[in-house]
Amino acid sequence: MANKQTIKVNGSEQYNVVVGLDILQNFKIFIRDYDTNKSIFVIDSNVNDKQSELIQNLKACFNETFDYIVPAGEESKNVNQFNQIVDFCLNEGVTRETTLIAIGGGVVGDLAGYVASSVLRGLPLVHIPTTLLAMVDSSIGGKTGINHTTGKNLIGSFYQPKGVFADIDVLDTLSDLEFICGFGEILKYGAISDPVILEILHGKNLLDLRENKNQMESIIQRCVKIKGLVVTQDTKESGHRMILNFGHTFAHAIEKVLGYGKIAHGQAVFIGMVTACYLSEEMGGNVNEALLLEHASSMQILPEHLNIDAETLIEAMQSDKKKKKNELRFVLLKQFGKPFVSIVPDIKTVIQCWEKTRLILTDAYSHS
Amino acid sequence: MANKQTIKVNGSEQYNVVVGLDILQNFKIFIRDYDTNKSIFVIDSNVNDKQSELIQNLKACFNETFDYIVPAGEESKNVNQFNQIVDFCLNEGVTRETTLIAIGGGVVGDLAGYVASSVLRGLPLVHIPTTLLAMVDSSIGGKTGINHTTGKNLIGSFYQPKGVFADIDVLDTLSDLEFICGFGEILKYGAISDPVILEILHGKNLLDLRENKNQMESIIQRCVKIKGLVVTQDTKESGHRMILNFGHTFAHAIEKVLGYGKIAHGQAVFIGMVTACYLSEEMGGNVNEALLLEHASSMQILPEHLNIDAETLIEAMQSDKKKKKNELRFVLLKQFGKPFVSIVPDIKTVIQCWEKTRLILTDAYSHS
Repeated sequence: MANKQTIKVNGSEQYNVVVGLDILQNFKIFIRDYDTNKSIFVIDSNVNDKQSELIQNLKACFNETFDYIVPAGEESKNVNQFNQIVDFCLNEGVTRETTLIAIGGGVVGDLAGYVASSVLRGLPLVHIPTTLLAMVDSSIGGKTGINHTTGKNLIGSFYQPKGVFADIDVLDTLSDLEFICGFGEILKYGAISDPVILEILHGKNLLDLRENKNQMESIIQRCVKIKGLVVTQDTKESGHRMILNFGHTFAHAIEKVLGYGKIAHGQAVFIGMVTACYLSEEMGGNVNEALLLEHASSMQILPEHLNIDAETLIEAMQSDKKKKKNELRFVLLKQFGKPFVSIVPDIKTVIQCWEKTRLILTDAYSHS
Repeated sequence: MANKQTIKVNGSEQYNVVVGLDILQNFKIFIRDYDTNKSIFVIDSNVNDKQSELIQNLKACFNETFDYIVPAGEESKNVNQFNQIVDFCLNEGVTRETTLIAIGGGVVGDLAGYVASSVLRGLPLVHIPTTLLAMVDSSIGGKTGINHTTGKNLIGSFYQPKGVFADIDVLDTLSDLEFICGFGEILKYGAISDPVILEILHGKNLLDLRENKNQMESIIQRCVKIKGLVVTQDTKESGHRMILNFGHTFAHAIEKVLGYGKIAHGQAVFIGMVTACYLSEEMGGNVNEALLLEHASSMQILPEHLNIDAETLIEAMQSDKKKKKNELRFVLLKQFGKPFVSIVPDIKTVIQCWEKTRLILTDAYSHS
């Protein structure tokens, strides 16, 4: 735990995000501020299989625990799972002191977070993110939610956890693709706020970082600090927090058009960021997108991920349920680390930038 | 609108509670700060029938409105209604600017409030309370929720409205019992915070106040100020807000034992407050409970409301799902206006106070 860092995030109440090695081996130390009498564990089924020893250790920190296993995969973020977990909690006789521990990636974190916010109007919530993506993104900031037939994350709440414990060792059990996908968001933090991240990753094959835990610890800590700062300034996503959506307007549309599951979120974000860089340049920005493009191969971007014509993509962006009115807003960059939000007046420019992205990334693939 | 008052309540964001006559006739003035493009109206079915002209006027303040009619009655506070209204909102294509207007009593306010907090992680919410109880209590303070098979209000959120508009004229369509029941909470505010309310009501038949709108306006404004102050100090019910539960530990148990619907909430609160006064005296308080007892006849307290033996009542109190650990906590009074929270160490004292309440109120009934 030598380089462990505790990063304070201030939502409506301040909470700690602890990032480091061996965190969960020493969990008893970290949860001594909580009521350890009784807890509800909501666990991703894959994690439950792969990390059974770790989970037993966590359970030993409580007098009494009750498990709810969530089937792995995005499909679990639905209203039926939500209702079932709520029933489970209430039938087990939870009180407002019963801690809910969410163990898994973004799916379990978002789902269990929404349950925690809803049962008795709020149970204490602890996130134990087990994917790189969840460590640097979804476990921080208090967004919870489930999907609806009309779109993703359309039902949920803003609800801050009492603590987040990100243990680098847990990343060992991720598949290569799961590991790589976390870098969609990591590169994003580099682009919008901390270009040092881009320098650290420059010239590296991202997969090689699996073996360098100290480096990963440091990178994750940098990302958590950025996210923590942004969400502290804008708890309820009314303004500044929008910069976290760099690349995401395109990414959501790409995921929607290809069909969920056909491309990983991190890959879609990567492609979206490349397009947003081109768009930034068209709007007067000065961005060296090569620092992103060099990772196209590591990110396993394939030609079929790019097989979307511009009109279809733009239509998908315009039908985003969450957006204000009928205009296209993008987070763009003056330069790396200097984001701004802009309404792009000319749809032709957007089309050009998307075509350029397709060309460059397809070309990069054929030369990789 | 001569004596209209706007009372500021400060949750996570400050909002106005406007109480007066003719508020809704002038609704356009009050909502000019909101997005009036599109709104979802969630309306109690009885109110929709009885106040159709008023509702048409309210709708005229928006460019586009969509109605969801909630069947009147506590049974509507369930997860199916919740899911249906959420579906309705999302299928109508709401955005984060779409205001949800809740028109009805506590049931619609709690249900629609929970929907508003959950759709897109929060739609702007406006309460138009149409019962006396909702005006002085449930519409203020940001508690939302639905019932579960294991108990009332066990699923929900803390979510503050953007505004509350309580129009005294709306009270005209209440039944006598609905009107009277609001006085359970009104007398409570007198007991815990503002004994002037007890003086105003002293010697009056509560039903006669229906005709005195200026008096009602002033009483409601007093109550809203107290509730606003308490919930501002304790948004998430972690401490001070508990004083609002004066009489309620008994009341919830009475409602549970008799079966929901067999006694109105306001009547149960009235009986609970009498018992809490006796308990306060046993714990050294100096309370003139005659100022409550004189209203037993107005409150239509019947012998069958009191037909609960002490053991059954205490058992029901001990199984309250929300309470901390296994102890009985009560809000008691040093004197009117001076509440404190106490754990009563001796169950026999509680039993005695309940028997005394039964005796006195049964006696009051037989002499009324």
